[in-house]
Amino acid sequence: MGGNLQVRLVRYPRGIPRRDDFDIVEAARPEPGPGEVLLRTLYLSLDPYVRTWMLAPDSHVPHNASLDLGDVVIGRGVSEVLESRRGDLAVGDVVVGETGWQAYSISDGSDLRPVREASTPSTALGVLGMPGFTGWAGLRFVGRPEPGNTVVVSAASGAVGSLVGQLARLQGCRAVGIAGAPEKCRFVEEELGFAACASHRSSTLGADLSRACPDGIDVYFDNVGGDVLAAVLPLLNPRARVVVCGRISLLNEQELPQGVDRSGVLLGSILTRRLTVQGFVWPDFADHFDEFLDEVTPLVAARQVRFREDVVEGLEQVPTAFGRLFEGSNFGKLVVHLADPEAGSLR
Amino acid sequence: MGGNLQVRLVRYPRGIPRRDDFDIVEAARPEPGPGEVLLRTLYLSLDPYVRTWMLAPDSHVPHNASLDLGDVVIGRGVSEVLESRRGDLAVGDVVVGETGWQAYSISDGSDLRPVREASTPSTALGVLGMPGFTGWAGLRFVGRPEPGNTVVVSAASGAVGSLVGQLARLQGCRAVGIAGAPEKCRFVEEELGFAACASHRSSTLGADLSRACPDGIDVYFDNVGGDVLAAVLPLLNPRARVVVCGRISLLNEQELPQGVDRSGVLLGSILTRRLTVQGFVWPDFADHFDEFLDEVTPLVAARQVRFREDVVEGLEQVPTAFGRLFEGSNFGKLVVHLADPEAGSLR
Repeated sequence: MGGNLQVRLVRYPRGIPRRDDFDIVEAARPEPGPGEVLLRTLYLSLDPYVRTWMLAPDSHVPHNASLDLGDVVIGRGVSEVLESRRGDLAVGDVVVGETGWQAYSISDGSDLRPVREASTPSTALGVLGMPGFTGWAGLRFVGRPEPGNTVVVSAASGAVGSLVGQLARLQGCRAVGIAGAPEKCRFVEEELGFAACASHRSSTLGADLSRACPDGIDVYFDNVGGDVLAAVLPLLNPRARVVVCGRISLLNEQELPQGVDRSGVLLGSILTRRLTVQGFVWPDFADHFDEFLDEVTPLVAARQVRFREDVVEGLEQVPTAFGRLFEGSNFGKLVVHLADPEAGSLR
Repeated sequence: MGGNLQVRLVRYPRGIPRRDDFDIVEAARPEPGPGEVLLRTLYLSLDPYVRTWMLAPDSHVPHNASLDLGDVVIGRGVSEVLESRRGDLAVGDVVVGETGWQAYSISDGSDLRPVREASTPSTALGVLGMPGFTGWAGLRFVGRPEPGNTVVVSAASGAVGSLVGQLARLQGCRAVGIAGAPEKCRFVEEELGFAACASHRSSTLGADLSRACPDGIDVYFDNVGGDVLAAVLPLLNPRARVVVCGRISLLNEQELPQGVDRSGVLLGSILTRRLTVQGFVWPDFADHFDEFLDEVTPLVAARQVRFREDVVEGLEQVPTAFGRLFEGSNFGKLVVHLADPEAGSLR
């Protein structure tokens, strides 16, 4: 067994993160202390929210915390227990937790959750993990659509958006997606069963959406922010809800965008249309995680909910693969495969 | 008895409405048909929301409806019944309703409500009218503060804001106002009993607010939009509520403001702070109007709730007085006195 391969942040990225913003170093393998376990990372999740931790502390982009330069990048992963000094975790257990971008990690167990599904451990990072839970909770507790409502979701082929639209469809809503590439839109319509999907790359996005939403929009689940919201805004019905879940499009801006200040139009629409615009993060609803798994796991097993993964091979690929989230060149949940379980048993 | 003096819109204002945007004409006195009453306007209310009806139909500023050029301007007023062809309204009754900017009006009764308070009919247009109701309902149903919360309200000396802060104070919140002129800030602190009041004209608004809100802001009741919201945003606590009630600062802009697009910062703050930003208009809660009167009328009578009126004399003054709402040169609820009741009886 070698050392601990790690991806560390060495520069706050300007714009979309690039290879040179990171160092790959081989550190010593850590030793678990009392009450701790040693984990070997099997799959690592690459998620847009991690970009907010790479914002310089003085960035104008609102964020809650920044990595220090030199830190191992944070991130969730599926791991196998290699050594355990805890009674509740045994060697070979497969768990999901806050591993960070590294091959081995130490945990006191507080962030760990056993992976339920035997077939594909990576689903614990996607449709049955935090992205899926984010979509489920945001729709249920913030968007609160009723049958017959029109629900629009951006980044519709992604880990969060694909579940949002499918859950909306299953509860009798008209699900309309927004995605980028034509093959993503086709996937959203044909595989995920959305009523329609418009491309945010089209110059006719507003008209396309209007056609796709003949009764207006009751819930907009926003994963991207920016221009897409501007196109959705005129179509929102009175008392519509906007679920502010992500802002991929806004995270890489170096400066506040010049041009027109659209915040007044946003406020004006909120007032005249009596909108509710609400931000949330999944930990706000963490108590409901088991309820989510109980509901969505059978839907995935029955293929009533589909999902797609974009699997990258090897930790070495992470520094370049991460930027694909912001170029939109990933297609499905972006995960990194590091290793297979040695003594693996999933419970 | 003369004809019916009316203020009509003859030009969609560019910026703050001016005298020349209106015509004052003397029309024939209207005759009530079956089921209608003839009303003589005693007091007319000048309110910022009326400006939205003066937006050109193609204005970029979000609005629901526009007046046609030549229309009598809409507005609420307190009137006396001069002739009645309705069993439920008698000559001499004093009522509040949608009179428009004119000396006489016809109503089928559907918009009318008897004025409860004998002392000052104009309160039915202010603290005990729609502005007061707007503040009460927005605080109760949208802002939902809890005792100990910090509640900040803009246009704090105005008809809506002054009630919001006083109700917040009475339910155990820290009430902090934002107003313009120093005498308004003094009034808010000394007469209305807010804990503090900051001036939006100060270059240190952000720091002043920060000092006035040592525990952050839990509810921001926004009557103005724009720059003031930008100063409040960094102080909002996680899960804070922003009540979008008005946007005085945004209604007179001819074009979308150039410069930086702050909508991204707004969305980013909504997400990272998990804010709820909700627009509302009082008709959404109209069923609760009697509950409001039952609660606030005794508070006004006991002077636990204070208010201030800025009374203008004569309909002829309306075209110039209206613009004062947007210059901030009114001080208290702006009402226009047209006439005293002839055979007046308040019930």
